[in-house]
Amino acid sequence: MHILITGAAGMIGRKLADRLAAAQTLGGRAIAALTLLDIVAPVPPAGFAGPVRPIGADLAAPGAAESAVSARPDIVFHLAAVVSGEAEADFAKGYRVNLDGTRALFEAIRRIGAPYRPRVVFTSSIAAYGAPFPEVIGDEFLTAPLTSYGTQKVIDELLLADYTRRGILDGIGLRLPNICIRPGAPNKAASGFFSSTLREPLAGREAVLPVDDEVRMWHASPRSAVGFLIHAATIDLAPLGGRRSLMMPGVSASVGEQIAALRRIAGEEAVRLIRRESDPMVRAMFMTIPGRFETRRASALGFRAETSFDAIIEAHIQDELEGRFASNADHREGRS
Amino acid sequence: MHILITGAAGMIGRKLADRLAAAQTLGGRAIAALTLLDIVAPVPPAGFAGPVRPIGADLAAPGAAESAVSARPDIVFHLAAVVSGEAEADFAKGYRVNLDGTRALFEAIRRIGAPYRPRVVFTSSIAAYGAPFPEVIGDEFLTAPLTSYGTQKVIDELLLADYTRRGILDGIGLRLPNICIRPGAPNKAASGFFSSTLREPLAGREAVLPVDDEVRMWHASPRSAVGFLIHAATIDLAPLGGRRSLMMPGVSASVGEQIAALRRIAGEEAVRLIRRESDPMVRAMFMTIPGRFETRRASALGFRAETSFDAIIEAHIQDELEGRFASNADHREGRS
Repeated sequence: MHILITGAAGMIGRKLADRLAAAQTLGGRAIAALTLLDIVAPVPPAGFAGPVRPIGADLAAPGAAESAVSARPDIVFHLAAVVSGEAEADFAKGYRVNLDGTRALFEAIRRIGAPYRPRVVFTSSIAAYGAPFPEVIGDEFLTAPLTSYGTQKVIDELLLADYTRRGILDGIGLRLPNICIRPGAPNKAASGFFSSTLREPLAGREAVLPVDDEVRMWHASPRSAVGFLIHAATIDLAPLGGRRSLMMPGVSASVGEQIAALRRIAGEEAVRLIRRESDPMVRAMFMTIPGRFETRRASALGFRAETSFDAIIEAHIQDELEGRFASNADHREGRS
Repeated sequence: MHILITGAAGMIGRKLADRLAAAQTLGGRAIAALTLLDIVAPVPPAGFAGPVRPIGADLAAPGAAESAVSARPDIVFHLAAVVSGEAEADFAKGYRVNLDGTRALFEAIRRIGAPYRPRVVFTSSIAAYGAPFPEVIGDEFLTAPLTSYGTQKVIDELLLADYTRRGILDGIGLRLPNICIRPGAPNKAASGFFSSTLREPLAGREAVLPVDDEVRMWHASPRSAVGFLIHAATIDLAPLGGRRSLMMPGVSASVGEQIAALRRIAGEEAVRLIRRESDPMVRAMFMTIPGRFETRRASALGFRAETSFDAIIEAHIQDELEGRFASNADHREGRS
């Protein structure tokens, strides 16, 4: 089996490539080759036995998508995207990468033609939804995004469904929860505080919290996100019918609940590193976010995430901190 | 005020141009000029005092959209589209006209830049919705189309909302009910029987009914459709918030109820001209159509349609048959 990952140099893309390289199989079949595309050619994952073809290209550029699917990958993980902040800041670039890039990929698959019909696993986003929200958001809640990024993701979902209905590909769109705890340096995303207020104290560093404790979000760990992708790659998608995109499971937690989990795991010393510095603009942005879902469709299909925020923190300690974390300068063992 | 109509040679486009030309005003302001675009240059409406610029062009062709908006129309009625049957039969053409054409129009407006910010009235469709449906479809029902045409219309709605949010234009998307009774010759649309089983008997001709009496659809007359467009052109759209597209009011009627209305108006002789000829393919297509809506948002904004199927038939007799209709060869006066 041949696998293509677009956006393979991103945080989730790298973890996915690493996990596939380590397993050497997917859904019980050997992985013969990997094609890894990103705007800068991705570094091949360590330890993969087969050939890896890195491509440095913008999917929207002429010929890039054709090149990416030229070896007719059986599975396409389509992760490549401009993130939400950038899609908002650069209108044209967001549409070029997030809409034209996706369409170019689907069109390249269409032009190869039957019997080629790859499984396409597309990462959509919680940004597919826009306020006003009900208390609990169900699988049939409308996708009325309020950002350019969310708009582009929903358009991609619609294309995915139509190309699937036409038999051109076999697609599934995963609306990812907020991915938490994001490893690495703080990024510019306004939502960065959800991760940084945990990640930084666990590393003994200060973090700024710009919103109130009541702000509620829907979270899953990077480990779960990779798990969703791998699960989606081989399951039977017929139960989805025509509605090919769905919200992934997660943990509903308020910022206050996140902090309480941090306290249980890393103690009061860690919590003291969170500096409250209310930011009216960020507060306004997170007044009306979708904080609680009922993800019955995903559950029925076997998608699983953490079931507590403690487990999300533990996943970070295991996967990113080698089981150890700091409270101030004092390194101690994580609980699991 | 300058008005642009795309798709101005279509059935609704012509009626809209005629109505505007007759009124010479819109929302209390004089109409100074009309630009009328269609794939073949539209015929200027009779009796309009100001200049009319007909353009024969495909909006998706390079430069066409720029040319159409070069005079900075205050109101853009964007009706141009490949119809549902054609979008399904010709995948590439459907996306080129219905997606790329719309995007080209919006981009041409964006490139002019502030302070230019026209009102854009976009005709979306009942095809924005896909089964399974609840008994009554509310304003918050998800848009999960099951045709390429419906997919393209929902993508256009998403673009309209995002371009509006960005302040590039001031858009509203009208999801039109099934337009009934369509004048003119029977067309190839699978849904054509909803109109032809009324229009043909009213003209003394036979018509074929391929589905059961229980099939239920949501209808409005061409006159109402033009009314929606004109109303949408000048009302305050702020109450819509971020959700800029909405279902238009209509009449829920089963085929049986349509026939009963025909009987009340034109007698048993007219009904006898309907030949039942069950078509398994058409029956299957119309097993799961959205037949009943609760259009509270549209009502609150002042959109009005017929409130009975009898009124839909009467509108046809007045607007298309000069108040007269045939039952067999026997012409008689309509009731109103």
